[in-house]
Amino acid sequence: MDINKIRNDFPVLRSNPKLAYLDSAAMALKPDCVIDAVDDYYRRLGVNVHRGVYQLSYMATDLYEEARSTIAKFIGAEFDNVVFTRGASASLNLVAMSYGMTFVNEGDEVITTELEHHSSHMPWINVCKVKGATLKYVPLDSDGRITVEAFKKVLTNKTKVVAITHVSNVMGYVTPIKEIIKLAHEVGAVVSLDGAQSVPHMKIDVKELDCDFLSFSGHKLCGPTGIGVLYGKKDLLEKMPPIEFGGDMADTVYTHEMTFKMAPYKFETGTPMIASAIGLAKACQYLESIGLDEISKHEYYLKSLAVEGLKKIPGITIYNPTAETGIISFNIDGVHPHDAASVFDNDRVCIRAGHHCAQLITRHLGTIGTVRASFYLYNTEEDVQVFVEAVKDAKNFFGQF
Amino acid sequence: MDINKIRNDFPVLRSNPKLAYLDSAAMALKPDCVIDAVDDYYRRLGVNVHRGVYQLSYMATDLYEEARSTIAKFIGAEFDNVVFTRGASASLNLVAMSYGMTFVNEGDEVITTELEHHSSHMPWINVCKVKGATLKYVPLDSDGRITVEAFKKVLTNKTKVVAITHVSNVMGYVTPIKEIIKLAHEVGAVVSLDGAQSVPHMKIDVKELDCDFLSFSGHKLCGPTGIGVLYGKKDLLEKMPPIEFGGDMADTVYTHEMTFKMAPYKFETGTPMIASAIGLAKACQYLESIGLDEISKHEYYLKSLAVEGLKKIPGITIYNPTAETGIISFNIDGVHPHDAASVFDNDRVCIRAGHHCAQLITRHLGTIGTVRASFYLYNTEEDVQVFVEAVKDAKNFFGQF
Repeated sequence: MDINKIRNDFPVLRSNPKLAYLDSAAMALKPDCVIDAVDDYYRRLGVNVHRGVYQLSYMATDLYEEARSTIAKFIGAEFDNVVFTRGASASLNLVAMSYGMTFVNEGDEVITTELEHHSSHMPWINVCKVKGATLKYVPLDSDGRITVEAFKKVLTNKTKVVAITHVSNVMGYVTPIKEIIKLAHEVGAVVSLDGAQSVPHMKIDVKELDCDFLSFSGHKLCGPTGIGVLYGKKDLLEKMPPIEFGGDMADTVYTHEMTFKMAPYKFETGTPMIASAIGLAKACQYLESIGLDEISKHEYYLKSLAVEGLKKIPGITIYNPTAETGIISFNIDGVHPHDAASVFDNDRVCIRAGHHCAQLITRHLGTIGTVRASFYLYNTEEDVQVFVEAVKDAKNFFGQF
Repeated sequence: MDINKIRNDFPVLRSNPKLAYLDSAAMALKPDCVIDAVDDYYRRLGVNVHRGVYQLSYMATDLYEEARSTIAKFIGAEFDNVVFTRGASASLNLVAMSYGMTFVNEGDEVITTELEHHSSHMPWINVCKVKGATLKYVPLDSDGRITVEAFKKVLTNKTKVVAITHVSNVMGYVTPIKEIIKLAHEVGAVVSLDGAQSVPHMKIDVKELDCDFLSFSGHKLCGPTGIGVLYGKKDLLEKMPPIEFGGDMADTVYTHEMTFKMAPYKFETGTPMIASAIGLAKACQYLESIGLDEISKHEYYLKSLAVEGLKKIPGITIYNPTAETGIISFNIDGVHPHDAASVFDNDRVCIRAGHHCAQLITRHLGTIGTVRASFYLYNTEEDVQVFVEAVKDAKNFFGQF
């Protein structure tokens, strides 16, 4: 993995050669090839898909549907497993609003965890309230991890859905998901996996995982904003009702009756996010050209270096030193995470602070928030040094008061 | 209005100087300034909004929220009236799923019309089925128009919602919407206006119209794909529940309870369509720089020229010769609309054929579909000539069989 070549692919890093961008868990920067793909669609075509009977529209349709195939292949799926959405949040909500509202009933149970991003568990608070079902949380272990043992304690024959993260966006822990999926299937439950923090960072094969649903976003995967994917098993997608109605998803429409196209189209109402879908496919190809395993290793290496660096600074609490991925959550003792992060920005370190849309885990940690650094393929050992120095500086700065 | 200068702003037209692109009602081409704005965000920033505590994120947030202000001003609204969505279809569905499912009850009535795009009336078929309400259709007049008189016939004290198009995407008729809104308000009903075909083509002031909701898309307005707007009156948005749950829209989240931000944010779950929102604002500024009144006049002039040309060809049925906008729907007698449109493509005329996601009106017209030509600011008198010649050629071609 040639890190200098990689950094050179990213215009924001070329323009800001000293920038340590450590916020990829919120949004990954975009390489030229992705921006160019979006640009190319708008400049060369810029027309609608599916319904046009002219060359430009055929070409746009081909690009858009090829994007679906590319993205499907990226996660080991087939073309018609892939529903395009606005982002992972929309995908996760689609599962809850369609599958959940249809197949979860009074007395049923849904399992989730305190490690979830709000977009993963909040839709199920709603489903359970509306349907009179019970929402149960897997008790986390002392490190804040989901374990198979703890999962077994909440799993029952009443469990209908497991809504669970693959990698926590705060702790960076990898959920032992294969075992959990196997156990869930044994009681007839389906698993909605939040892959927002896993799909961009590790090789995923939905067939190997055997997950029922997988949601992820383009913008965390070096792709454009406003695009996401819901992977669903075909039999599940087929039996789920659409939740939006209108153009492009309808088959036959009368004044009081209507029929719909097959999945995935019945879930894609209106003109799609054509440019962003094309850009996302290019992002998948870009990451594959580098290698997902290489990217995983690189992130973990940098994260480990950074943890070593932070450990040498007294008065730093690291919440997840054992995480298997590129995410560090920490605090400078006695300093509000937002204050800490603002000081880092002076050092050109882009970092995130707060609850990271995951209030349950920050509450579980007994803090109002954390400072989070997240590493990706374009980060370097120098970024780690800059980051560790910035934490030292911040520590000294706040030590004055 | 300098048409040569305008055409020069559009890369697809520069690359295809002989192209008569007459499918703007499905998707408008994009000018350089819009493509550049999208490109600039990705190349210069490419980071997330709202939650970052570093300069690049502040700059992205400013651009994104300034886009909201620009778009609000474009329709005479305030900043917090504007909810960003995936497109007009998503906006129209949001009104139905949130307002409709909450405030329409058994025995209530919803009024819509056969002139609607599927995305305008289908969500209300669903609401009325689920809630036990009655969906009523305004009887169209002999031209296929919505009239105030006909609207009065279906309006009752039970009417809770009027879901209606501002400009029909098949017939190009302008609905007498001000009077209809006034009458609807007199019985306490709210009006959800489908502005997908009006906002890009005429000056709209939501305060003057006094509509309760207005939905439109970016991609029909020279803007990017994957972005749309729901305008809503503040008191209505405030009392509507969110329909998606998760990141960025939550206020405080517990395991079984949750509170939400104020509108518009409570309706915007997850990382938004940042690049497309920024591009849409630029598109609004671009159209304003030319003048919406000028654009309306230009389209109507070209449409009228084209109607005159078509009228001289025997065996052509024009369904909407009196339309006030830039849309023509017609058929070559005895020729399937798709066959006709395919032949036009040989002449470099991009045109649409079919039911245009509006099966009720094509059924009302007694046809399986129409050929539709739609004019926009970048079309020319030469486009009209090429189009009329292409219809003649198609007529002759099919006359051989």
